[in-house]
Amino acid sequence: MSTPRRPDPVQTADDAARQLAGELMTANHAALATLDPSGAPAISRVAFGLCPNGLPLTLISSLAPHFAHLQADPRCSLMVGEVGDKGDPLTHPRLMIRAHAAFVAAEAPDRPALRAHWLQGHPKAALYIDFADFAFVRFTPEGALLNGGFGRAFRLLPEDLRA
Amino acid sequence: MSTPRRPDPVQTADDAARQLAGELMTANHAALATLDPSGAPAISRVAFGLCPNGLPLTLISSLAPHFAHLQADPRCSLMVGEVGDKGDPLTHPRLMIRAHAAFVAAEAPDRPALRAHWLQGHPKAALYIDFADFAFVRFTPEGALLNGGFGRAFRLLPEDLRA
Repeated sequence: MSTPRRPDPVQTADDAARQLAGELMTANHAALATLDPSGAPAISRVAFGLCPNGLPLTLISSLAPHFAHLQADPRCSLMVGEVGDKGDPLTHPRLMIRAHAAFVAAEAPDRPALRAHWLQGHPKAALYIDFADFAFVRFTPEGALLNGGFGRAFRLLPEDLRA
Repeated sequence: MSTPRRPDPVQTADDAARQLAGELMTANHAALATLDPSGAPAISRVAFGLCPNGLPLTLISSLAPHFAHLQADPRCSLMVGEVGDKGDPLTHPRLMIRAHAAFVAAEAPDRPALRAHWLQGHPKAALYIDFADFAFVRFTPEGALLNGGFGRAFRLLPEDLRA
């Protein structure tokens, strides 16, 4: 059995890493990790987009478990980046963002602007965006890990994620 | 603004739900939610497969954060199910499994059988499967949520996930 010693593959972000992160953040969906009421990690798929200021945003329903999870504890992580058709799935780039979630109140002054911006990227959301159980949730990133394939991992700061 | 009241969409699994869950569990990768050392939820992409007994299995490196997370706290959740090219990403089926992780020791008597079985479904893993930092991790499901699109959610018991 081969037992190579390999260095920690996580590097400081450079311009190429920041650019790739920005490309991955154009995703229209993400995987979301939250804490369930017992403190165990839960996972779900959510719609994903960006606020006009470039920070991550989602639109979620109170019928989904993650809604209550985020109301009880705003700590979460998001992953964006699709797996392509070819090769090892782990060689496809993905961005994992640690964040805090903040709900946008239905009567928030900037909700109309968020709503209009969201519909540009998610036109099918027009079907449910105004349902009473749906709410926008903003994410404030605390840091991120970009994995561009084996041996290509980068640690990103919040400022590296700004568009 | 429309304010419809909708019933809890989560139903008890039927044969069709169990069959769809089984199809989703043929995935070769998953999103994994773990707890970081602070107790916050972390997320990552992992290889995914099944043990010969049909239960979920992964092969992970100690260089990845989720390895230490699962060693410190075995509670986790997995999500399988790809987003297709068309339509709203939230209408594509996905299975979210709450589980406990258990590492398979390098000298475990059944590791050779797991190794052979894994390579059938993940031939490219031959490049690293024997690296000393890689370990198999079995998942024991505690329950699952199958989301087959809006209004098509099912709660599954561990026995519903057996192949």
